[in-house]
Parts: sequence; structure tokens; C-alpha cells
Amino acid sequence: MDIREIQRAFDTRAEQKGWQALHTPKNLAMALGVEVAELHRHLQWRSDEEICALMDSEQGDEVAAELADVQMYLIKLAATLGVDLEQAVHAKIAENSRR
Amino acid sequence: MDIREIQRAFDTRAEQKGWQALHTPKNLAMALGVEVAELHRHLQWRSDEEICALMDSEQGDEVAAELADVQMYLIKLAATLGVDLEQAVHAKIAENSRR
Amino acid sequence: MDIREIQRAFDTRAEQKGWQALHTPKNLAMALGVEVAELHRHLQWRSDEEICALMDSEQGDEVAAELADVQMYLIKLAATLGVDLEQAVHAKIAENSRR
Amino acid sequence: MDIREIQRAFDTRAEQKGWQALHTPKNLAMALGVEVAELHRHLQWRSDEEICALMDSEQGDEVAAELADVQMYLIKLAATLGVDLEQAVHAKIAENSRR
Repeated sequence: MDIREIQRAFDTRAEQKGWQALHTPKNLAMALGVEVAELHRHLQWRSDEEICALMDSEQGDEVAAELADVQMYLIKLAATLGVDLEQAVHAKIAENSRR
Repeated sequence: MDIREIQRAFDTRAEQKGWQALHTPKNLAMALGVEVAELHRHLQWRSDEEICALMDSEQGDEVAAELADVQMYLIKLAATLGVDLEQAVHAKIAENSRR
Repeated sequence: MDIREIQRAFDTRAEQKGWQALHTPKNLAMALGVEVAELHRHLQWRSDEEICALMDSEQGDEVAAELADVQMYLIKLAATLGVDLEQAVHAKIAENSRR
Repeated sequence: MDIREIQRAFDTRAEQKGWQALHTPKNLAMALGVEVAELHRHLQWRSDEEICALMDSEQGDEVAAELADVQMYLIKLAATLGVDLEQAVHAKIAENSRR
């Protein structure tokens, strides 16, 4: 996955919409949480079996779109905080393997 | 970012710890939300200026580690739901550019 | 605030809608999180000043309705977990005052 | 449940700790979400049966304390937003009964 390309797409859209000033660390962190909750709305009243069936239905695309939103806000938030997300993941994997 | 490699590292650890049976869609979705909240704990009482200062301090690494946790659970959740995360992001970017 | 009365109203509606079997601890906990996020959606891109202005507008009632939803799910979740919410609050206040 | 009394206890503690300036609508809303996630941490890897067993164990008090924290932040957030929480709940129950 090309993180920089995704970030550029996010920023281009923000520029076109005039949203850039809103993309502060705190707002983006809150938006990340809201996107996770949008995902939860699809899953909250369903059992794991029903969730699997949901993914095979037309609604599966909506769930995928929510996962995508979480990914995009995560990439943007990391960039805004000056964190190299890929490097952070590798550091965390290395730390986990030591425990 | 190599999504499959990260997923393999996640799965290897889960296997070693005996956590695999717990990694159902619903549990992973809930865990994703908890990881976002762990991130929020670092940011919640701080202004955007204080958050920037935090990132330049030693605690910046802890924030990066929380971002990494969110990324890892997101990758695992997407895989468990049968979603190609990278493709989902590209589909969402394409959809956004049409609006 | 009459907790039992609110809980009865919640349960009566659940009975009429046939939702009772869904109201397990885990589902209710997840729903509580989703309701908090619904509240966040009203606040996320706004400054504290803009939030105050929002509360004076017609949309203020929608925010109040989200707060009410959080309250109702909290009461129902506590009851489902066998927790006396009022007593738990008093115990927590007592604990806080000792710190 | 006496909402005003709980709010007074919350405010007294905030005053003693010097936290009042931090208790803005946005910070309190974020804190409410973090408290819900603290609750989720106790429940996330457990089945509903395991959650019931947890409530009968010593850890049940910790879960009750998290529910109490959610209640206290909810009361404080509502007050900060100028919302009469009890009235908002009754309005929502009335609205639900019309649907």
C-alpha cells in the first residue's frame, strides 16, 4: 500500500473542499474514532456469523468503504503528527516480538 | 507498506500467544476502537500546540506506538472480513473524487 | 433522574420491537460507544466556540438527543451487568475524594 | 439519581485539581469516549458468558467504576453544553414512543 499516494489524495480533496484548516491533530484523532464507530454500526447488533453473511451481501462494500475511511484518516493523522506510520508499525512488531 | 507482512507478524504472535480464537470480526472491531481510544488518551486534554510539543518529547514514541497498534488491528480486521484494504482505499478515493 | 423509569421505557420499546435478544452486555457496550460517536459527529470539526453557537441553534436539540441516547444505553448496560449505577457513582466519588 | 449533586462533586474535584480550564465541550466529549473504551477493555476479548462471570468476580467493581466514570463525564458534558440531561432523556423517550 502506497501511503504517500493515499495521503496526497486525501490532501488534494481537502484542498478542493477547503477543509485543510480543520485537519488539526485533535480533529483528525476525533474523526478517526468516528470512522471506527461508523464501522461498528454495521457490526454492533450482529453475531460473528451474521457479520460473515453481511460481507457476502451488497452491504459488504459499505463495510469495506468504512475500513478505507479509517485507513485514510489514520494515514493523515500520522502524517500530521510527524509519525512515519510504516516505521512505527515495524518498531511495534519488533517490540512485540521481544515480549 | 507491506500489508501482508504486517498481517503475518500479527498472526504469528497470535499463534504463539494462543489468541487466534479470540480474533473474531466483532472482537477485532472492538479492539480497533480501544486502540483508537488509547491514542486519544495522549491527546484528550491537550491543545493542538501541546500535541505538537508532545510529539517532539519522549512521549512521541508512545503515540507512534498507538498509531501502529491501530494500523495492525485495522489490517487484521480487514483480512478477517475478507476485505482487500488497499483496493478498498482506492475504491473510496475514486468514489470521493466523483463527488 | 429516575433510573428505573428510564430503564422500563427502554425495555418496553425493546419488547415491542423484538430487540431483547440483542441486548447482551457486549452488544450494549458497543452500542454505547456508537452513541458517543454520534455525539462526536456533531462536535468533531467545530471549535469550542462553534459548539456553543451550535447549542443555541436548532441543531442543539439533536445534540441533546444524542446525550439522551448515551444515557439510556448506559442505564441499560449497567442493569444488564447487574451494576447499581447510582451506587457505583457514589462509590467512585468517595474513592476520588480519597486521592 | 441526583444529577446536580454528582455534577457538584465533579466540579469540586476539578477545582481542587486545577482542571477546570480543561473541561471544554470538546475535551469532555473526547474524555467520554475514552471512558467508554476503558469499559470496553474489560469486555473486548470476552464472550457474554465470560462477562457475566467477570461481574461476579472481584473485577466486577472495576467495571462498575468505569460505568460510573462514563456517567460522571456524561453529566458534566451535558451541563457544559447547557443541556438538561433528564429532560433530554424524557424528550427522547417520548419521541421513540411515537415511532
